[in-house]
This record gives sequence, structure tokens and C-alpha cells, in this order.
Amino acid sequence: MSLKVYEATCTAPINIAVIKYWGKRDTKLNLPTNSSLSVTLSQDDLHTKTTCRVSPDLKDDHLWLNGKEEIIAQNKRLTNVINEMRAQRKRMEENDNSLPKISDYNLHICSNNNFPTAAGLASSAAGFACLTYTLATLYQLQLDNVQLSTIARTGSGSACRSLQGGYVAWEMGEKEDGSDSHAIQVATREHWPEMQAIILVVNDTKKKTSSTLGMQHTVATSPLIQHRIKHVVPKAMEDMKKAILNKDFDSFAEITMRDSNSFHAVCADTFPPIYYMNDISRAIVNAVHDYNAAKAALGSAQKYTVAYTFDAGPNAVLYVEKKDANNVLGVISRLFPAAADNNIYERFTFNEKEVDEVLAKMSTPVYQQMNAFKRIIDTKVGDGPRILAKEFNENVSLLKANGEPKELL
Amino acid sequence: MSLKVYEATCTAPINIAVIKYWGKRDTKLNLPTNSSLSVTLSQDDLHTKTTCRVSPDLKDDHLWLNGKEEIIAQNKRLTNVINEMRAQRKRMEENDNSLPKISDYNLHICSNNNFPTAAGLASSAAGFACLTYTLATLYQLQLDNVQLSTIARTGSGSACRSLQGGYVAWEMGEKEDGSDSHAIQVATREHWPEMQAIILVVNDTKKKTSSTLGMQHTVATSPLIQHRIKHVVPKAMEDMKKAILNKDFDSFAEITMRDSNSFHAVCADTFPPIYYMNDISRAIVNAVHDYNAAKAALGSAQKYTVAYTFDAGPNAVLYVEKKDANNVLGVISRLFPAAADNNIYERFTFNEKEVDEVLAKMSTPVYQQMNAFKRIIDTKVGDGPRILAKEFNENVSLLKANGEPKELL
Repeated sequence: MSLKVYEATCTAPINIAVIKYWGKRDTKLNLPTNSSLSVTLSQDDLHTKTTCRVSPDLKDDHLWLNGKEEIIAQNKRLTNVINEMRAQRKRMEENDNSLPKISDYNLHICSNNNFPTAAGLASSAAGFACLTYTLATLYQLQLDNVQLSTIARTGSGSACRSLQGGYVAWEMGEKEDGSDSHAIQVATREHWPEMQAIILVVNDTKKKTSSTLGMQHTVATSPLIQHRIKHVVPKAMEDMKKAILNKDFDSFAEITMRDSNSFHAVCADTFPPIYYMNDISRAIVNAVHDYNAAKAALGSAQKYTVAYTFDAGPNAVLYVEKKDANNVLGVISRLFPAAADNNIYERFTFNEKEVDEVLAKMSTPVYQQMNAFKRIIDTKVGDGPRILAKEFNENVSLLKANGEPKELL
Repeated sequence: MSLKVYEATCTAPINIAVIKYWGKRDTKLNLPTNSSLSVTLSQDDLHTKTTCRVSPDLKDDHLWLNGKEEIIAQNKRLTNVINEMRAQRKRMEENDNSLPKISDYNLHICSNNNFPTAAGLASSAAGFACLTYTLATLYQLQLDNVQLSTIARTGSGSACRSLQGGYVAWEMGEKEDGSDSHAIQVATREHWPEMQAIILVVNDTKKKTSSTLGMQHTVATSPLIQHRIKHVVPKAMEDMKKAILNKDFDSFAEITMRDSNSFHAVCADTFPPIYYMNDISRAIVNAVHDYNAAKAALGSAQKYTVAYTFDAGPNAVLYVEKKDANNVLGVISRLFPAAADNNIYERFTFNEKEVDEVLAKMSTPVYQQMNAFKRIIDTKVGDGPRILAKEFNENVSLLKANGEPKELL
């Protein structure tokens, strides 16, 4: 093995928007038609891990994604990010002769998600955040979070929100070059540590429209999205920031649910319409509203105990405070029963008496099909990207000493 | 039997909106927040039939709906219409002494639909249109269609559109008293006789939100409906009238589908959201778009061969020209198969070769569950209410000679 190996390995989190990004005003630069806001989820549960290596020994650039090679030159989004990071390194080297000229070396990148693609979670945000962050670490670039998020954005819009932990706003910006379209942390995870997320991965067989294509169709054909962009989201962004700063769960929940509904409404208003939610998703929505009313009837001081949000797929993400998470999931387990050979609820212990008490106030019927969910992920709010190693470390790296990925499909 | 029996029996059609009525600016007078436009369907297939009788022998007012007595005084919508028609008769009698004073007599009303409630078709439009028309016939009122539709509207908004055949616009009007909020015929059924309708009655177990409540929630909580009301519908109304007058099926189809989508989008934007369509409904939408693309690929000069629209429920109404109706239904029969013991497709004969030809160009998968539909109704555009009898006629009347309904539940 050559001594001239430079390597970094990092992880980055996924984020789930509570005010959705849907619509680009510039498709090349990934500039959005509205601002958005998300919660970063814990990397302890879900993350992308990426190793980037440069070395004079490497014969060419290569990238492996979940054990499968991607041709970088065929992927404009990857090319954007890699070229920009390399150019930044090159400028640094030109300004400081003492720096090793590693921008000229070929690059091997290996990136894996710790969750199956079948989980239906959008992984491109974590992926491009991790790629950007790992390259910045490898090249020792002096970039702040705003600068990093601007670059990650050119790979995948929502990736810019995965570069920080806690509660993160992506301000849409106004400039044509996109230099003011980046993410800003609204609050850290420590500010509101009670916040939890439950991801209900819904069984679905239908082929879904990619969000990149979907949002372009919506902008081109939905009359209603103009109202969402101009009037609905700007107010929601303002109100949501206040809700987070005040740790006001009622407001957080209502804005989150309304925005999810507004997003799926403009999808339905697209021509031809785009449907991401299915009958199971809609049954979850009804159950959440029913649950909140039941808890209020039982004397809860909160108007909302739990909030739903749905991305470009049928899966529900429920936001709930720690004190309520177990009861919510207990009620869900009764309304969406798993068959005897399905162990998705097995790792949880519910207070069945308290579950009964809430169910007695609810009218939502038990869902007619067993096994509505493929998987349940319970997690919490998390931090931003983490550096696992700044040099080659056999225990951490996704690459073997010879530069090949350790795991191939 | 007394000689002083006055009776009339009429039928009235249902109508299916292609530009939907959703939202009231005045809930007492049923004044809408937007104009709407519908197609009247043939009474040969679907209708409400109503007998109204007055006689000094009758001891009280009574009304039977589908064999079950309704207490008139407890139903504000019924009271509105009956009181107004009686008051009109009374004024006539006061102005013309030669007229029998039948406005003082008690009233028996019997009204039946010729389709089961389980068919999931909104029957209140046909019901109130028929009630208004039959009372006008009984009382021999000199009212034109506009006047009749204004009265029917106070019973059920969309009833005003069932008082005429063909293609009917309900102009929302501006006046506070609602006197300019009434239906006007855009074109007769003879103008565009090729138009057909196929109603796919979808299997569904879910309890649905009544449209009266639903539209009030949407107006109160959906930000997007304001855009629909102010910008989307006014343009759609104008374009749709042109499409009908020009018998331009492509425009008719696109406006119809877009408006259905817009309506269900604002339902989804309601808080809590209202979902009328289910996974079967959405599979129909996707199949229709796929079918239209396949026909265009096979050389059809039309962009759209068939259009869908969904009211406040999961059932699809497909508009299609006569030349294409059989092929559309043939493709539907393959994509939504019926089990061996289900005879919904049995009465049709399809050209299987032509069905295969279109299916070969489509990518929509066969729907995963058998028996997606409970019933299929194929019908055409129809005329306005019909008078069956202007006096007691044993063969036609829904009432026995003694004033009791012939059929009771």
C-alpha cells in the first residue's frame, strides 16, 4: 500500500421535512420554489456512511453506492458535487504551495445506507450530505455549514438540510446563482430533546413517481401549487420557526399535518395526478386525528399528541413527544394488527390498559388487512454529520486497502 | 275515494358535475362559492319518481322516501321547498278566484329512486328536482326553468341542475337573496348525442363524510380552495361551455379530469383531510390516463378518448363518446377483473382483439383484488324531468287510492 493515501469516512443523517420542498425554480441548480423545514433524525438509527479516498495509485474515479458501481460521468448530480469539491481543493492548493496536490489524484467513493432501499426512505438527502461532508473532510476544505449546504443542494435539494442536526430550515433564496439558497439551523436537538419520530413503513406494491419528476409535473400543471408557494408556505415557515423555538407541540403538530396535506393536495392537482399515499396512509391520517381527539377527551392539555407527515411515498412519519410515543404505538399496533408470524411490534412493551383507555374513546375501525406495515422505526432527533476517520482506518473504511469496496452486491 | 283528489307523478334525472360544486357562501339558501356545470343522465336508466297528492281527505302532511317516512318538519330542506311551492299556489289562488283552493289541503308525497342507495350515487339532486317539479305540476304553477331551479336549489344545491336535460350550468350569482343563483341549459342532449357515461360503482367499506359537512369544512380550513374558487373554476366554466358548444371532446375531457382532481385536492387540503377516493378510484384514474395515451399511440386523432370524474365518493363516472364506450369498458373489464360468480360484465360483448390491441400499449397492471366494482351502469345524456300523470292514475302513482304509499320498507 502506498503511503500517499488520503481518506476520510463520515456518516450523515436523514431528515424528514415538516414543511415540504416541492418544486424547483431552477432544475440545474436545484433551486426551490419555496422554503422548507425539516427535523434531522438520529444517525444511531438511520444513516448513510461514506468513504472517500484519493491516491496516486488509483487509476480512475469510481463510486459504489450500496455495493453497486455508479458511473459518475453519467450522473449529473454526482458530477456537480465532486467537481465543485475538487475545484475548491485545487484553489486551496494554488494558494498554498505547502499543501499536497491531492486534487489531481483519482478518487474512490463508497457509500452505504444502513437501512434497506425497500424501507422506502428517501436516501438521496443523506447520501449527498454525506458525500459533500466526506469530501470536505478528505480535502480539508475550510467551509462552514452554509457553504457546505449550498454544494450539497446541487446534488439533491433536500441534502442541504442533512448537514446539520436538530431543526433545519432551507431558505429558498432569491439569487439566480443560488448562493443564498441554503440551510440554516433553527434549533439544536438539545433544545427540544423530547421530540421523537416513529416511521411506519407501509406495504405497497405500486411503482411511484420519482420526486424529481413529480415536482416538475406539479409546477408545470397544478394551478393550486401557485397558491401554496406564494401564500401557504411563507406563513407556515414563519409559524413553524416560532413553534420550534417555543417548543409548542400543538402548533408544531398542526403546521406539520397541514403542510403534509397541502403537499399531497398539490400532487393530486397535478395533471395527470400523482398519488403517493395509499389507503393505508389515509387510514393512518384518520387514526391520528381520532387519537388526538381521544386524548383531548381524556383530559390531555394538548390539542394534538401526535402529528403525521408523508413524503413522496406511502410511509408515515409520526412526530410525538417521548412521554406519548409508547401509547401512540400501542394504539397503532391494535388498529393495524400484524399477523402471528410478523414480529414488527414484538420489541415494544405497551401498557395495554392505557391503550384500551384511548381506544375506548376512538371510532377508527381496525384496518381490514393484516400487516399494513413492513417495518417500524422508532427514533429521535439527531445531530449533523459525524467524522468517523480522517485517514485510512481498516475498522471504519468502506474500502479495502487496495481501493476496492469491502462489500459488493 | 273523494272526487277532490289532485295528484301529479313525475320523474327527474340525476346529474354528474364535470365542474364541481364544493363550498357554500350561504348555507341557508344553498348559495355556492363557485359556479358548476353538469351533464344530465338518462332517466331511462336512473331516476327519482315522485307522486304528490293534495286532498281534503288527507289528515296531515306526510312524506315517504324510498318506502320510509321522513318527518317533514324535522327536515329544513324539505320544508323550504314545500313551503315555497305552497305559498306560490296560495298567491295564484288569491289572484284568481276561479282556482280551487288546494293550497290549504294536506299533502302526501311519495318518492322512490330506481337505483339502490348502495349504488353510492348522490340521489338528493334528482330527489329535490323531482319534488320541485312534481309540486309545480300538481299546483299548476306558471314557473319557468330558472324559477324552478332557484327553488330546487334551496332543497339541495345540485338539484337545480337536474331540472333540465343535456348540459347544464349553475351560475353562482352574486345577490344575497340568491335570486340570480340558478341553472341554465348550455346545450341540449340532442346537440351532442354521442356522449355516453359509464358509472363504475366501486367496492368500499369506509364511512364517508357527507358532502354538506365536507364542503363546509373545506371552506373553513383549506387555504387552497380560495385559489380554486377565484381562479381555477371561473376559467374552467368558460372553457367548458366552449368545449360543449364545439363538441370538442379533448377539451371537455381535460377540463373534466382536471376539475375532478382539483376538487379532490381541496378535499385533501381540508383539515382534517377528507378522502373520498380510494385505491380503486386512483387505479381507475391511472388506467384512464394510460388508456388515452395508448389510443393516441395507436393513431387516434384524439388526445383523450375517455375522461374520469369522481364526486364525493369512490365511484368513477367515465365520459366517453359512443364509438369508444365498448372498447373502454372492455379494457376496464380486463384490468379490474370480476370473480367467476360476479356477473357485472356479463351483459357486454367486447371485441377482444381490439381490447388486446389497446392493452398491449398500456402499462397499467391488473388490479390486485378481484371485484373492485359492485356494479356498472352504462347510460347516456338525458332530458329534463318528465310528467307521467297530472292526475291520479293507478298505474303510475306511488300512492294507493287511500293516500298510503304502495311500497313500504
